[in-house]
This record gives sequence, structure tokens and C-alpha cells, in this order.
Amino acid sequence: MNIEMIREAQARLEGHVRRTPLLNSPFLDEIAGRRVWVKAECLQHTGSFKFRGGWSALSGMAPDLRARGVIAFSSGNHAQGVALAAARHGARAIILMPSDAPKMKIDNTRTLGAEVVLYDRATEDRDEICARLTAEHGLTLIKPFDDPMVIAGQGTCGLEIAEQAAAEGISQADILVCCGGGGFASGIALALEANAPKLRVRTAEPEGFDDMARSLASGTIERNSRMSGSLCDAILTPQPGDLTFPILSRLAGPGLAVSEDEALQAMAFAFSRLKLVAEPGGAVALAAALFHADEIEGEDVIVTISGGNVDAGMFHMALERFGA
Amino acid sequence: MNIEMIREAQARLEGHVRRTPLLNSPFLDEIAGRRVWVKAECLQHTGSFKFRGGWSALSGMAPDLRARGVIAFSSGNHAQGVALAAARHGARAIILMPSDAPKMKIDNTRTLGAEVVLYDRATEDRDEICARLTAEHGLTLIKPFDDPMVIAGQGTCGLEIAEQAAAEGISQADILVCCGGGGFASGIALALEANAPKLRVRTAEPEGFDDMARSLASGTIERNSRMSGSLCDAILTPQPGDLTFPILSRLAGPGLAVSEDEALQAMAFAFSRLKLVAEPGGAVALAAALFHADEIEGEDVIVTISGGNVDAGMFHMALERFGA
Repeated sequence: MNIEMIREAQARLEGHVRRTPLLNSPFLDEIAGRRVWVKAECLQHTGSFKFRGGWSALSGMAPDLRARGVIAFSSGNHAQGVALAAARHGARAIILMPSDAPKMKIDNTRTLGAEVVLYDRATEDRDEICARLTAEHGLTLIKPFDDPMVIAGQGTCGLEIAEQAAAEGISQADILVCCGGGGFASGIALALEANAPKLRVRTAEPEGFDDMARSLASGTIERNSRMSGSLCDAILTPQPGDLTFPILSRLAGPGLAVSEDEALQAMAFAFSRLKLVAEPGGAVALAAALFHADEIEGEDVIVTISGGNVDAGMFHMALERFGA
Repeated sequence: MNIEMIREAQARLEGHVRRTPLLNSPFLDEIAGRRVWVKAECLQHTGSFKFRGGWSALSGMAPDLRARGVIAFSSGNHAQGVALAAARHGARAIILMPSDAPKMKIDNTRTLGAEVVLYDRATEDRDEICARLTAEHGLTLIKPFDDPMVIAGQGTCGLEIAEQAAAEGISQADILVCCGGGGFASGIALALEANAPKLRVRTAEPEGFDDMARSLASGTIERNSRMSGSLCDAILTPQPGDLTFPILSRLAGPGLAVSEDEALQAMAFAFSRLKLVAEPGGAVALAAALFHADEIEGEDVIVTISGGNVDAGMFHMALERFGA
């Protein structure tokens, strides 16, 4: 895993993936006590940064393998990212989704052209089903984060951040990245190491699911004690990845963790001040910038809004509780 | 009023105004039956395209006049655009707002550094107050749309659309622009005439307030019969401007009008498919593209989302009625 792989991914992504804007608001600056810059990956195709990794993986495959198709498991954003990337490459995509995944995400994944295979989390073994389908159809598995081609794709966002920060005159800052397994954060960290070494990645997670922060602190991979019970469904993972953790261990600063209420309040501020739709897991980095200012260094902070795939009911709850 | 003024405005706006993205979604394409491209001016500073005109006017003033300050009247988006542009130029801004304007918009305008003067629509004469303050303080009035420098600023959005359309391979299309007095539409029309003459502006308005569409049809300026009773507050004006109408009369195609329900439904689609916050008046062009497809020509349509300054209650209503 190195910067060359990210640069190669960027060449493959050119013209297919959006260069998302870096936004700000004087109102957010005032709350945070410093300048807050928002990398709006919710505006990426399929509503999250995951399309970068999906496209990187599909576009980097040998044509004969790709012609047989790909498989992925995900309840949401990775599913849609892989589905659209596969469709645009004319490749078959089978996506394993839990039958209790949000109906909208299942519908979207199907509409984007994937074959969705539902399984019962309680009674069926996802890995067994995945292995069987993979073997049966000669499919290639695209993992959600611990995959070099996927990390390389996510890292292209870091190349953009380096350029956009330079254009705004930001030479030194903490870069807060919403973090599940660490694919997004580690890709960005590698890109910044090469192109803007004074921009330091820091992971943002929900309280109680801060496996990456604890792993970075202890120097060894730590697991979450549970895998449900947070609104931030998009970034709940059992533990850091085997590829992502060593990268972040070397390059990232201390991890941050925010409460659910802070994430919801950040969603309300993204609505009122940036005109952006953020999902709870996509708002944790903004929440850290706004409400954990004393844990951050420097005059500028850059945060990712990593996704915006939230249903109307959840969005309403955030606005009702914290909206203007 | 000519293209040179728009190009000069662009030079003054460079580095101060956002180049907003041109977004799309396969889900919207399917509804519209053609490719739909969205110019997301809700992501502009202050949440609407009005900041372009405000910056153009302030930056184009003689320094001694600017030092005395500016005045504007507006219940919302123009107020905030002028307030921020004035603050960043170190100029005094007095904004006349009706006392029943949304509290959030009054608060924002103040927080952006303007002196807000409230007046009672029922008992006080806005024009009289404005004339008195202007004379008393030697202020310069920045009109909301019928002002060459303001039109030139709004036109910079058209220069961006011309470039972005070319980059997407779009050589011919209808460009639907949310329309009040016609400053935004006429500026874009002049920019496209020069830089992309096969992109044709068409105005989008709320039903019952389609003064521009009727004026374009009859060839003479027609008034709206009423000035309230629409959720699309940002684009309710008595009649087309004396400067804007001749430009649109020469360059625009037939105007479009959409129902309130169509505007609200377009807001819900902007939420779910683009992750954007649109206000009702900012969503009428998208509504026209989605729900009046038979009145539009070509394989591509470009629409503006002109603003996103909507409160949580109104946004919730749109999602509750039309959200997924």
C-alpha cells in the first residue's frame, strides 16, 4: 500500500468520480473557535465516498476477472458504491445484504443494477453464503475497507484535500475523518503524507464504538464490545483492519469520539449552515470539530462529511431536536 | 448590460465566490426521461446565488462611495448576500427587512455584520424609509435584480454552467432557472449567449406568480395579481425588471410554471438523491425538469437550485409529504 497506488487510482477515477467541494461557513467557525472546512463527500455519486473505492476496485481488475463479476457485503454505502461502479463497467454485481437493512438502501442497490441477495443475520452465515456464491460464479470479492485497491480509491479524496487546502492557504491542520474500519482514513493519511505532510489525519468515531481510537492509543488492535446500538450504522465495524491499522498507527494523531447527540446536532448544522444532507455516521467528524474543539490543534480544521444516505425520519429527528 | 460586464465581474469574484458543482443522479434521470444536471447554488456562500450579485456590486463600487456604505431591502437571500459581501469589504450595510420576515433570516443578516432596520409592512412605507436612510448616510442602494452590476454577478454562474456543460459533453440543452425579478436568469442568459449559444435559458416560477412566463408570452411586462400566498417566498416579485425583461425576451425560451406540491416534491428528491437542501423557491426549476418533461426539449436539461435557506419546519413538511 503506497502513494503510487493512490495516484494510479486517481488516474482511473478521473472523469468518473466527482471532485467534491470544500465548504465552510462563518457560523460554524464561530462555534468551533477556528476555521472549519468541510469536504462534502455526501455529494459523491451514490451519496458517499464509497464510490471511490468501488470504482478503483472495478477499474483496476483484470478484464477477464471483471467479466465474471464481483461480490460485496454491506448494508448500505459500500453496497451502492460497488453496485454503480460495476454497472458502469458492465460487470455483474452480487451484493449480500442483511434482510433487515433499510429498505431504501436495498431498493437503491437493486435500482443501480446489482443482484441483491438477502440473508437472515440471526440464522444464516454471511461468510458461508459469500464463499459459496464466489466459488459458484467465479466472482471477485470487494471488501469494504481492508483491500489495497479500495484504500487507494478512498485515498484519492486525500489528494483532493491536499490541493484544496493549499488553494485556501492552509498549510497545517488536523483532518478529521469519519472512521469505521479505517479505509477512508488510511487512504487519506497516505495521500497527505506524500502531498501535504503537515495535514494530520485524526479518526472520528461514535462513543462506545471507538475501536480505532483505542487501538491507536494502545498500539494494538482492539475490538468493539458490541456491534449495534448506535445510529451511526455506516461506521460500525468490529475492529480496525489489518491493512488500515498499521497505516493509521504510523500517521494518525489521537482518535476522537463523539456522542450520538453531538452527531445529530452536527447534522442539523450541516443542514442550516452548509445546505448539506449528512447521515449520522457521516457527521461524526463535523461533530468533533464543533464540540470537541479543545482536543484539536491549529487555526484550521478540515472534516469529512463522508455520507448522506439517511432516511427522512432520521433526518427529521435530528432537525426536530437540534434544528434552528 | 453586456458580456464584458459579466467577465469583469468574474475577475472580481475570483477567489471570493464558490464555483458550485454540477451534480446529477441516475434516479432523477429516470423520472425526467432525460439527463438532469443540477447547478447547486444552494452551496454558494450565504446559501444562495445572491452572494454573487452582492459581491459584484460591492467590489465594483468606487472606494469612496463604498466607504460610506450600502443599503438594500430584502426579506431573505439578497439581504444575506449583500450583508456578507459588505462585511468582507469592510463596508457598512443597512438592510431594510419587514418585521415579519423569518426570524432566522433576520438573525443571520445581523450576524453577518449588517445593521438590520425593521419596518412594518402594513403601516410603513419601505421606499420612503429607504430614501431617507440613503440620503442621511450617503449610502448606495443595491437593488435585488434590476441593477447591471448585480445582473453581471449572477451571470458569472452562467459562465460556469457553460464550462461545466462543455466538460460533460452537453452542447445543446434547456437551462431552467428559478426566476423572481429575472436577475439570475438574465445574467445566465447573457453569459450563455456568448459562451454556449446552444444552451437556452428558460425561467421557472410558481403557478399563480408566473409574471415572467406571461410577459415572455405576451411580449410586454405583466404583473402578478398578488404578492403573497406562495411557499416560494424567495422568488415572489411584482413583475419582471426593466433591465431583465428585454434580455430574457430576446434570449429565453417559453417560461415554465410549477405547483407548490411539485416544488416540495423536488425538495424531497434533492434531499434523497442529491443530498442537497433546497428551499421551495430554489426547487422550482428542478420541479419543472422532473414533472414537466413534455415541455422541455433535448436529451439533457440543466437546472439551478438557486437557494437553500429553508427552516426545519418547512423542510420537514416537504419530506413528510413526499420523502421516501
